[in-house]
Amino acid sequence: MEEQQYNTINAIEWRGDHVRILDQTFLPGRTVFSDIRDVGRMWEAIKKLRVRGAPAIGIAAAYGLYLGVRELHENNYSSFEIEVKRISEYLNSARPTAVNLSWALHRIQSTLHAHRNESIAELKNRVLKTAQTIHDEDKRVCKSIGINGVELVGKKARILTHCNTGALATGQYGTALSVIYHAHEAGKKIHVWVDETRPLLQGARLTAWELQRANIPMKLVTDSMAGHLMYTGKVDMVIVGTDRVAANGDMANKIGTYSLAVLARHHNIPFYVATPASTIDLQIAHGGDIPIEERDPREITTIGSSEIAPPKVEVYNPAFDITPAELITAYITEKGIIRPAFPENLKKAFGS
Amino acid sequence: MEEQQYNTINAIEWRGDHVRILDQTFLPGRTVFSDIRDVGRMWEAIKKLRVRGAPAIGIAAAYGLYLGVRELHENNYSSFEIEVKRISEYLNSARPTAVNLSWALHRIQSTLHAHRNESIAELKNRVLKTAQTIHDEDKRVCKSIGINGVELVGKKARILTHCNTGALATGQYGTALSVIYHAHEAGKKIHVWVDETRPLLQGARLTAWELQRANIPMKLVTDSMAGHLMYTGKVDMVIVGTDRVAANGDMANKIGTYSLAVLARHHNIPFYVATPASTIDLQIAHGGDIPIEERDPREITTIGSSEIAPPKVEVYNPAFDITPAELITAYITEKGIIRPAFPENLKKAFGS
Repeated sequence: MEEQQYNTINAIEWRGDHVRILDQTFLPGRTVFSDIRDVGRMWEAIKKLRVRGAPAIGIAAAYGLYLGVRELHENNYSSFEIEVKRISEYLNSARPTAVNLSWALHRIQSTLHAHRNESIAELKNRVLKTAQTIHDEDKRVCKSIGINGVELVGKKARILTHCNTGALATGQYGTALSVIYHAHEAGKKIHVWVDETRPLLQGARLTAWELQRANIPMKLVTDSMAGHLMYTGKVDMVIVGTDRVAANGDMANKIGTYSLAVLARHHNIPFYVATPASTIDLQIAHGGDIPIEERDPREITTIGSSEIAPPKVEVYNPAFDITPAELITAYITEKGIIRPAFPENLKKAFGS
Repeated sequence: MEEQQYNTINAIEWRGDHVRILDQTFLPGRTVFSDIRDVGRMWEAIKKLRVRGAPAIGIAAAYGLYLGVRELHENNYSSFEIEVKRISEYLNSARPTAVNLSWALHRIQSTLHAHRNESIAELKNRVLKTAQTIHDEDKRVCKSIGINGVELVGKKARILTHCNTGALATGQYGTALSVIYHAHEAGKKIHVWVDETRPLLQGARLTAWELQRANIPMKLVTDSMAGHLMYTGKVDMVIVGTDRVAANGDMANKIGTYSLAVLARHHNIPFYVATPASTIDLQIAHGGDIPIEERDPREITTIGSSEIAPPKVEVYNPAFDITPAELITAYITEKGIIRPAFPENLKKAFGS
């Protein structure tokens, strides 16, 4: 029963000739689905976080590329390829930090190149098929992450998590939340501390909503409460997702993640990062090379219709931070638990 | 000129026969003054954070006690004393964590006891005079804290602060913000990182407003950004206020303070606490004995008119946390800088 509850959230769905997304900017107040029929709308949906979460924006970009290429009138491969690259770069510009976007787009480009002797009509169809494959694979991968992570969760565990890493952020189940869903399903007595995750409140709006639907015990807290929870002995483990993992094991994730990692280390609490292979970027040597997206100051100064700061206040709004490898206990992946030394073990599991 | 700008904020003012407060729940959008003429209204104003900040609620409670006792019809000292105690307990129940409330009320009760042979009319007048003395002293004390703290601030300093500890929180100048005001006045090139301070956003609403009026360079950030700022080398020192200091040097302050102290230690950044003597409670052995106020869940789930979480979500909302003495570099007080070992040095400076 409970599995069905979180199984039924479809953040992204291919509907024969268009993409339907659950517009996450309206949650939890309203459940609004949005039909996306062209690449410009998909770019906007990714940019504005209508669809969000590293794996989900990879999937969305893949479908977005199809919505773009199906309109092309090129009739030879070399001009078709130039247009595919142009559309890919456009989609990739929507958000810089999560590698899944460029990973999905490159994967489609490689597929096209391998079949460059096919007709343009066949190639267009290959874009759609590859997008659907990426989508289907993500569902299986997320399930594996969840199953693999269960062994790390105690029989009774108070788990702190950040942002939203659930079904809304992926094809299904999620990454960090997949571990939580599967631990709950395995009968473990878990309690989840949900960080609200300012500025965009993905924890309060999305994770609380998902866990409530799944009947998993939880409490919402502000981001500033994590230290106090740990100091008073109320947290057994931290599990978060990630937007990009570098070859040395550093990783980027939603702003606030690094603070949690430092706090966990100070209190000797294990700090786990759940990630699919598609988020691991062995081309990037270390976290310092991961681009950090800076977003609109109004995300901080305006909540709903309320102005929470004086007019013209100066704001700094980095959307992500870097957590260095030495603060990470282990990565939870579809290929199992990856422990330090990360440079060697990530390469062994995910190197080509 | 700049001094005048922050000099002119009167969070609390005695107006001959009533108290005028600047109702801080409307800031920064509207500057609303509220006239308080009876003790019930003062209790409500403290409870609802219309007046807030440890020193300011001590002052407000002192005036509140006068508003209560002036209505009394008792004509002998012993029944008058019983009523004074009853009103004090009522006012003290508005907020449990800051010791300034009970400190101010006890001080007035001691004064009355020392003059118990005077007429009831004279004693009532003594309550008002003592409240005014507490108010005046706080202004001088806050100025001394600011002046004493200047030596700790580098010629160029990026200072992170939390909550609001300024003129709005005290009689004048503030505690941590007094150090910032006086360092700026002394010509130091400072830049202030203002934590928004969820859930009630005292940083975004009040500190940003105060610093803007004083033309002190600042940027607003979410609480979750402090770690990232430190990791990327953008913070030279942290200065916060406090609601109660225990004899061993542990202290309670706005939720989120403890996380900042851990982060500062991890990055070898000094962590200073500005406090008047009235906030130091040598009767309390250690931080574990300080009562922590838990507040309404709606403070987290509702911002302005926006519901940011699903209905019926469970919430944990502690308003304060405890920072242990070992994470505190020094206390900045009106009697100078107090460094470890705190149990000895606090007793030496503030023991009776």
